Amino acid sequence: MTVLALLDGTIVDHTAPLLRVDDLAVQRGDGVFETIMVVDGRPRELGPHLDRLARSAALLDMPPPDLAAWERCAQVVLDAWRGGREMALKLVYSRGVEGEGRPTAFAMGLPVGPETIRKRNEGLSVITLERGYAADLQERAPWLLLGAKTLSYAVNMAALRHAERNDAQEVIFTATDGTVLEGPTSTVVIAQGRTLRTPPPSSGILPGTTQGALFRAAEAAGWNTKVEPLRIEELWDTDGLWLVSSVRLITRVHTLDGKTLPDDEQRAALHREITELFESQYV
Amino acid sequence: MTVLALLDGTIVDHTAPLLRVDDLAVQRGDGVFETIMVVDGRPRELGPHLDRLARSAALLDMPPPDLAAWERCAQVVLDAWRGGREMALKLVYSRGVEGEGRPTAFAMGLPVGPETIRKRNEGLSVITLERGYAADLQERAPWLLLGAKTLSYAVNMAALRHAERNDAQEVIFTATDGTVLEGPTSTVVIAQGRTLRTPPPSSGILPGTTQGALFRAAEAAGWNTKVEPLRIEELWDTDGLWLVSSVRLITRVHTLDGKTLPDDEQRAALHREITELFESQYV
Repeated sequence: MTVLALLDGTIVDHTAPLLRVDDLAVQRGDGVFETIMVVDGRPRELGPHLDRLARSAALLDMPPPDLAAWERCAQVVLDAWRGGREMALKLVYSRGVEGEGRPTAFAMGLPVGPETIRKRNEGLSVITLERGYAADLQERAPWLLLGAKTLSYAVNMAALRHAERNDAQEVIFTATDGTVLEGPTSTVVIAQGRTLRTPPPSSGILPGTTQGALFRAAEAAGWNTKVEPLRIEELWDTDGLWLVSSVRLITRVHTLDGKTLPDDEQRAALHREITELFESQYV
Repeated sequence: MTVLALLDGTIVDHTAPLLRVDDLAVQRGDGVFETIMVVDGRPRELGPHLDRLARSAALLDMPPPDLAAWERCAQVVLDAWRGGREMALKLVYSRGVEGEGRPTAFAMGLPVGPETIRKRNEGLSVITLERGYAADLQERAPWLLLGAKTLSYAVNMAALRHAERNDAQEVIFTATDGTVLEGPTSTVVIAQGRTLRTPPPSSGILPGTTQGALFRAAEAAGWNTKVEPLRIEELWDTDGLWLVSSVRLITRVHTLDGKTLPDDEQRAALHREITELFESQYV
């Protein structure tokens, strides 16, 4: 079950070819995207996702996306969906055919696969991998597109294959100064007592929409939150370590670089509490 | 005038859609490519280009490309070409539709645009930009795909736009240790007396097919060649500085970071000599 709609709201066959070979998404990975969680027909954090799409497009000097049109297009996909309670809504905004100056834009409704659900439930074995960048690079080198969610994700995918070859399922990227960055498609969050922490977007990572929503809910429930640099060593001594993302949600890390992290009833209860906090805002 | 052929040799309409939205080239820039110069129906360095395609595919854990099939496919494009003496032959090898495990592969014959010819003839204004990577990163971090020619070129394109905003046309990327890397789509070559130098592929850059062919011709004509690290400062004191690439060929850099480089009859003669050396092997 997949639904594919063009930005103008036309639903088209997702198994039919749609992109020309000279589309810059194909030739250069030149475009941006977002993936949004939808439960029972309701998209989560659609506004923040659209805002991030616009920010990514601006970083790539693309025309500003027509957010009202994207909202209508998303609704078309939601209305056509017959595939179960959960749906991943992916928005793709490519620079378009080379030389034509007109972006290619479409939205897809996709099922949430059993593998994703299994990881969400069982947690993850994660390895840390160098990203090769300094944590202060983003501001002085905007051409590196750090903080933009681009279609050029070959490295992100290669890092995940590298993890699998090393009996792990996920990656936490690290900067050259030994601080934590992000996962290839997720945000790192830790708990220390009643404080949730995540690394700052200024370190060249994506501002996480799911992390943002989690922190908002946590603050409302009396938690402290900190957005500040996090050293790799600190990952070993937390009350909870998660990779959070729109569709896999708040996923526990149970193993780091081959070593099992501490687990006990208190930590399990904390994971339930955090997950319920997050979910409660969408009930 | 564009010719598009699938890997099996079928010629198809290049203006018709060919790729599904769930092709990983579209979704993730997940694939590799090569661009080959063709003059009067003869491809240049086809063997080295195909070898590099295979190396890039291996770095991305893709199935080894069927090089004999690519050669046949290239010939189909050459035979169908009616567009002038020069043609750019682009080979695209994507991981294919997600979950199907079957690459998408096609070759395009494209005209060489007037802008490329103008730059080839008039030379380039170039700015140096940080690439953000250490020059010794490639070996220890294979998941970063340094040295693979992937479809994830959004950063390369962003760097070129950054150059244009700064009244330049091209970029030389630099490593964190102050050494020279490469251009976004070209290799850096300098002349010092009767020696040609280029930075080593071990610094995380593409091995240049055009640079390789130039060095081969130069060695045969009695030049010395060196593949060794090159410091940024050394770019200011050369007898010749070029960005070399398959289609734009041996292109002089006349301006670096906004300052005009020395030019005199000796340097102009050297540029002619190097260009003729390179061209002579294809006569």
